[in-house]
Amino acid sequence: MTEPPSAPAPEELERLVESRDAKATAAAVRALPAEDTPYVLARLDEDTRVSLFELLAEEDAVLAAAVLGQLADEQAGDVIDALTASAAARIVDRMKSDVQADVLAQLDDEDRDEVLAAMSPSEAQDVRERMEYEPDTAGGLMITEFLAYPITRSVTEVIDDLRAHGDAFSHYEVGYVYGTDEEGRLVGVVPMRRLLMASHGRRLADLVVGNPVCVTVDEHLDALEGVIDRVPYRALPVLDKRGELVGVLQRASIRAATADAQAANLQTFAGIIGGVELRSMPTHLRTIRRLAFLLPSILLSFLAVSVIGFYEPLIDRVTALAVFLPLVANLSGAAGNQAVAVSIRELSLGLIRPADVFRVGGKEALLGVANGVVLAGVLAGVVFLSRGETPLLAVAVGGAFVATSVLAVVLGGVLPLVLSRLGVDPAMLSSPILTTLTDVASFLAVLGLASLLL
Amino acid sequence: MTEPPSAPAPEELERLVESRDAKATAAAVRALPAEDTPYVLARLDEDTRVSLFELLAEEDAVLAAAVLGQLADEQAGDVIDALTASAAARIVDRMKSDVQADVLAQLDDEDRDEVLAAMSPSEAQDVRERMEYEPDTAGGLMITEFLAYPITRSVTEVIDDLRAHGDAFSHYEVGYVYGTDEEGRLVGVVPMRRLLMASHGRRLADLVVGNPVCVTVDEHLDALEGVIDRVPYRALPVLDKRGELVGVLQRASIRAATADAQAANLQTFAGIIGGVELRSMPTHLRTIRRLAFLLPSILLSFLAVSVIGFYEPLIDRVTALAVFLPLVANLSGAAGNQAVAVSIRELSLGLIRPADVFRVGGKEALLGVANGVVLAGVLAGVVFLSRGETPLLAVAVGGAFVATSVLAVVLGGVLPLVLSRLGVDPAMLSSPILTTLTDVASFLAVLGLASLLL
Repeated sequence: MTEPPSAPAPEELERLVESRDAKATAAAVRALPAEDTPYVLARLDEDTRVSLFELLAEEDAVLAAAVLGQLADEQAGDVIDALTASAAARIVDRMKSDVQADVLAQLDDEDRDEVLAAMSPSEAQDVRERMEYEPDTAGGLMITEFLAYPITRSVTEVIDDLRAHGDAFSHYEVGYVYGTDEEGRLVGVVPMRRLLMASHGRRLADLVVGNPVCVTVDEHLDALEGVIDRVPYRALPVLDKRGELVGVLQRASIRAATADAQAANLQTFAGIIGGVELRSMPTHLRTIRRLAFLLPSILLSFLAVSVIGFYEPLIDRVTALAVFLPLVANLSGAAGNQAVAVSIRELSLGLIRPADVFRVGGKEALLGVANGVVLAGVLAGVVFLSRGETPLLAVAVGGAFVATSVLAVVLGGVLPLVLSRLGVDPAMLSSPILTTLTDVASFLAVLGLASLLL
Repeated sequence: MTEPPSAPAPEELERLVESRDAKATAAAVRALPAEDTPYVLARLDEDTRVSLFELLAEEDAVLAAAVLGQLADEQAGDVIDALTASAAARIVDRMKSDVQADVLAQLDDEDRDEVLAAMSPSEAQDVRERMEYEPDTAGGLMITEFLAYPITRSVTEVIDDLRAHGDAFSHYEVGYVYGTDEEGRLVGVVPMRRLLMASHGRRLADLVVGNPVCVTVDEHLDALEGVIDRVPYRALPVLDKRGELVGVLQRASIRAATADAQAANLQTFAGIIGGVELRSMPTHLRTIRRLAFLLPSILLSFLAVSVIGFYEPLIDRVTALAVFLPLVANLSGAAGNQAVAVSIRELSLGLIRPADVFRVGGKEALLGVANGVVLAGVLAGVVFLSRGETPLLAVAVGGAFVATSVLAVVLGGVLPLVLSRLGVDPAMLSSPILTTLTDVASFLAVLGLASLLL
């Protein structure tokens, strides 16, 4: 296996930046493997990071643009914000069209206008147009570097043009050539391999695959994922409302945007309110954001456990219940999480769909009863062995477990389907919701049954 | 947005299969959008599914192979197992080389030998060779359909050969042409676009990019992911031990294998022991597999909650503790899960690494103390308002919460790093482990402090 050259340590990079040696800094950054760049830059303190980009903007703006594009949008925005408008513009000018708008969206209006004013007019115009699209739509995700020719052109003309501009096309989407009519409206797609294998006298019109799968600029990420899952293409043409070809949406861009959206979801669901958190942010801001979720949680949690408070006189008589409450709750939760895992896998394999709630629920109920009875027997045995003096306690715990574990596996099987129907990532929310519900159900079942029997 | 044609319902397909109309069945299956196929086939009962493939094997073995390739390996294996050896062989003959071995691996030795004997000798030989590679290695994941030419050939010769065999190459990896020496050892790679843009008189030797990133047949999936993350290529050449080019590993195959491995992990971690579970499997088998995890859990859970049992005399005196135990445990868990989410995102962005345990732990400890003090104050207030008769209870609950919530956020920040170092998916295991630990810690802290104070 061929290994890339070893990377400079953050300390070395810091030293180079402090000596303001632009050439050596650029060389050191170039030696960083792509996967190390965000890490090494995250380890620099903020001033050093900004100085580094100042040096790179002078020395090699293309490199600066490539490196900045590897950072998280929030971080890249902070760097651009701290640079002079002219240094920032030099870098943003060289960024890929889909990243420019994302990074500039991090700035406030005034700073953004300053950078745009310092950029090359054509690039700035391009960015202004893109910023009118919502970030998670085809317009916001597409790249505007693509190959399009009127279908009246011959294969020879097209190939000659490709040869002539080979260098300029280096970061173009080159899997396809798009055939347009004279007004720039998309007629069809020519896969590059088809072009390669065609005899040179033919015209694009003979090769073009008509009626291509395409999307419009305002299509949302959720819909785009569905389209890209259904077709094998590397990239889809993006049309504006008039049917004109305005960009190309790469499979990889959709995947990356989905991954970003999921990561942001992960933080929101885990209770980080008001945008994503990075550890490079100031501690007081991070504290406040986390508290915004935890403070209301105290009250909600308190409501859930007040089920137990309601039965306090009973616990006063049979203290052992305080031990078996969490036991029943944990085991029911575990049984339910097995069903969650099976449903999530079957959803991702396409074997079940949100509409199958009753079929899945039925199958899980059957399994839940079988497992519930076996486990309740064991559980009752454990209770009886440890608290033989109150045999009815074993009956109450075992009986409650049958009820809650059946509920848990049915809920566990069904919740991913319901969440997926609601457009929420089931892998994220199923377990927390399930656990909260099985907790309350277990408390109620154990204490209710015990108060009847004891 | 262009929509694919609407799909036949499972009932319609069932009717066609029962009437044994091979032509109409094949037409109906062809009309199924790729994403619907696994779902519709999962809804047929097993006998109908097998009959359907019998019909397809006669009518259109290429279609049968494509459809079978879309099913989960376990399902595809069940179908092949139930078909006659000759029908099975007709289908497997037409499958992509990376799927053949996966599907045949589901059969027992005897059945597999029967199918292999009925296959075309060259395909069977190919499968036998592939089955010697472990499934999650480059050899097991590569496709053997690729374009390779000795570098002494001219561009014209290569392009003429590509044109002549255009149809046969339809499911080849065509992003690159591989240049070899006369012994078939890899010399370098020619990107297809470079070939397209080259003047026809040149030889491959002039165009070839030497010293290409390549992998050997026995490289494991974990290492392959690292390589593919680091380089932008669509596919990597796979070499055997002698340096001979034996296959091509596509980025998409690595991604798919990783997703499969993660899905299998999800089930294992959720407690489905002994392989993956699909709801189409017999209920008694599913019951036994789930019990294999839940039965031992009873004992482990019992050990954890016996912390509470140890303090029973205390709970007997201050019953309200039974209410506040789960409250402290749940809130500490919630605080810790915020830290888990931030660490998982920073890991995936490459901003932190497993070695940063102390740096991350330190940052979280700072935040944990700030949050812990604020929340403990509120919590103590709630306790005091609801149980004013024992003011020291508020002190015990608040004090315990400060300790457990600091522990929880530090653990939550650090656990994903530790798990990732151990090669385990942190998104999967961090929360369950965290919750178990914070439960025990909360029980100990609340009860320990209460027994001192009350």
